[in-house]
Amino acid sequence: MKIFNILPLDNSLKADLTHKINQKTKPLGALGKLEALALQIGQIQHTLTPQLNQPTLLVFAGDHGIAQSNVSPYPQSVTAQMVLNFLQGTAAINVFAKQNHMKLRVIDAGVNHVFDAKNVLTNALIDAKIDFGTRNFLSQPAMSLNQCEQALTFGATLAKKETDAGCNIIGFGEMGIGNTSSASCLMSVLCGIPIEQCVGHGTGLDDAGLAHKTFILKQAIAHHALNGVDAIEALATFGGFEIAMMAGAMLGAAEQKAVLLIDGFIASAALLVAYKMQPHILDYCVFAHCSNEQAHRQLLAYLNATTLLDLDLRLGEGTGATLAYPLVQAAVNFLNDMASFESAGVSQAVDAARVS
Amino acid sequence: MKIFNILPLDNSLKADLTHKINQKTKPLGALGKLEALALQIGQIQHTLTPQLNQPTLLVFAGDHGIAQSNVSPYPQSVTAQMVLNFLQGTAAINVFAKQNHMKLRVIDAGVNHVFDAKNVLTNALIDAKIDFGTRNFLSQPAMSLNQCEQALTFGATLAKKETDAGCNIIGFGEMGIGNTSSASCLMSVLCGIPIEQCVGHGTGLDDAGLAHKTFILKQAIAHHALNGVDAIEALATFGGFEIAMMAGAMLGAAEQKAVLLIDGFIASAALLVAYKMQPHILDYCVFAHCSNEQAHRQLLAYLNATTLLDLDLRLGEGTGATLAYPLVQAAVNFLNDMASFESAGVSQAVDAARVS
Repeated sequence: MKIFNILPLDNSLKADLTHKINQKTKPLGALGKLEALALQIGQIQHTLTPQLNQPTLLVFAGDHGIAQSNVSPYPQSVTAQMVLNFLQGTAAINVFAKQNHMKLRVIDAGVNHVFDAKNVLTNALIDAKIDFGTRNFLSQPAMSLNQCEQALTFGATLAKKETDAGCNIIGFGEMGIGNTSSASCLMSVLCGIPIEQCVGHGTGLDDAGLAHKTFILKQAIAHHALNGVDAIEALATFGGFEIAMMAGAMLGAAEQKAVLLIDGFIASAALLVAYKMQPHILDYCVFAHCSNEQAHRQLLAYLNATTLLDLDLRLGEGTGATLAYPLVQAAVNFLNDMASFESAGVSQAVDAARVS
Repeated sequence: MKIFNILPLDNSLKADLTHKINQKTKPLGALGKLEALALQIGQIQHTLTPQLNQPTLLVFAGDHGIAQSNVSPYPQSVTAQMVLNFLQGTAAINVFAKQNHMKLRVIDAGVNHVFDAKNVLTNALIDAKIDFGTRNFLSQPAMSLNQCEQALTFGATLAKKETDAGCNIIGFGEMGIGNTSSASCLMSVLCGIPIEQCVGHGTGLDDAGLAHKTFILKQAIAHHALNGVDAIEALATFGGFEIAMMAGAMLGAAEQKAVLLIDGFIASAALLVAYKMQPHILDYCVFAHCSNEQAHRQLLAYLNATTLLDLDLRLGEGTGATLAYPLVQAAVNFLNDMASFESAGVSQAVDAARVS
């Protein structure tokens, strides 16, 4: 498997970036989270004048054997139907990506469906199918270690292809009926948090459905009884292909010093796996939104993450990442385009010298 | 003075709009706050296919006599300097308005400065100066009732001019050294909340500065000892010209059934005045962000308002409104452009019939 090597942020421009931000025509700190974001992106790109180029959203799709255990109110076939919806350009993620000028790439990481080859030929769909869905992890590992490493490596290759072509900010989204179950198990096992606190209503389970899902996942975790917390072993055990490939793409993107725009609960679970492999990956992450899936808030806290949006979204697809993108643009734009107190001839606060 | 007449929302399309939202290819409610927003805008425009046309940001500027009482760390001259910064296109609001394709109009409602007439000729600045700053409301009313009505009426005329030209969404921003003091007094008097809970650090007061500001405002409120809570009397007493003109513009815009995009603490205080005059104005309001100014959260609660963003902003200028605009666009876009389950051939949740 590919060996990853993600470096921590270079702090040598931090003071200069902070000074540049503080000299803008605004009270100190008045742009709040956008100031922290401007500093972070300046540091990632190691420049006082960062630019966002070819913003791209990678949406990974895969099917899950665990869906056979009635953990979602939707049938497994919806994964393929939604991928077709993405290819037709009429899903939420298409609408938002178009609005905010992000390039959208849909990756079949392991959907239980054969897509028309012409979708692949026209570049609408990237065929990276590992298998026709994972196995049901209630009784067996979702995938083999070999499949898991294959997915991680392909993801990294894919991200590098984008950054080689000039993209320097990548959003991560997904589609996969049953994948909140994988995400919950990964969170429980890798964070050491009881599964009851890692589950939620997903796409719309009622209370009885949630109780059933919790019961199933508890059984699965007990069955596998993983020793230690090896991230790749946990990933192979609970899946899915789209989560593994997304984790690989995140690692590959961070290695290339791209900005990573993390969507909701599933994307955060993929990041959790990547973080356990390469902790410095967090330096490159912008957390787009806090999902309405209750466990997401706790997972974000574990990752020490602050989000840009909190809109009660629980759709996935990368919708949160795409909706947050204009805020990331705004952070870069104010850093580059706003006047300084000096250039605009604006008086600073009388105590500014003391606090700046 | 102009008599306002703001009608409550027409609910006759509510069921049809809700049905349209629920038939989109997503779990029920999965787009969270954007769904409530799509419903609201559909109702405001009374259509299943709303459109946002010529989004415009009105930034009202004015000076405040209370600034003489050291309630801000910035000198009064900064108001005019920042207006010139707006006209040069290099302030935060210019950067964000340009990015998000909102038209920006700067209005001199009462700045203590004579601007070059060529700015007015080129339409960069709207000259609506009531006076060269308000009086210091520590010892006298900020303005006369006549000036207050003049400001309200001019604001309404201005908004109508925009809507007559085809604009149907207006953001509201401001600039005025000392204007958090006016906003705090208006909030205290009109909501019946002690002034201590209505003040904050503004553009960067330290704790001693805040204690001084609170002392001054408490003295001012006691001095005027307003009987009852007549909104126009309170507005004339505490100012400022930009707040009064903004309140008038909000009333005028709602009367024309535009969507009102409310910025931070000052814009919310202007809305509070408008709300006390015409309560149904709230039906037309989208609250852009919750400011880092502590009193704003409480004022939003009083107005029963939920915000789109919470980014620790405390800049004003309409920056929060402009940053939130892409989310409003997203709400309209998903309503118009997403496929339905039927049109996309996507299966609904097995229990969707029960909950939809």
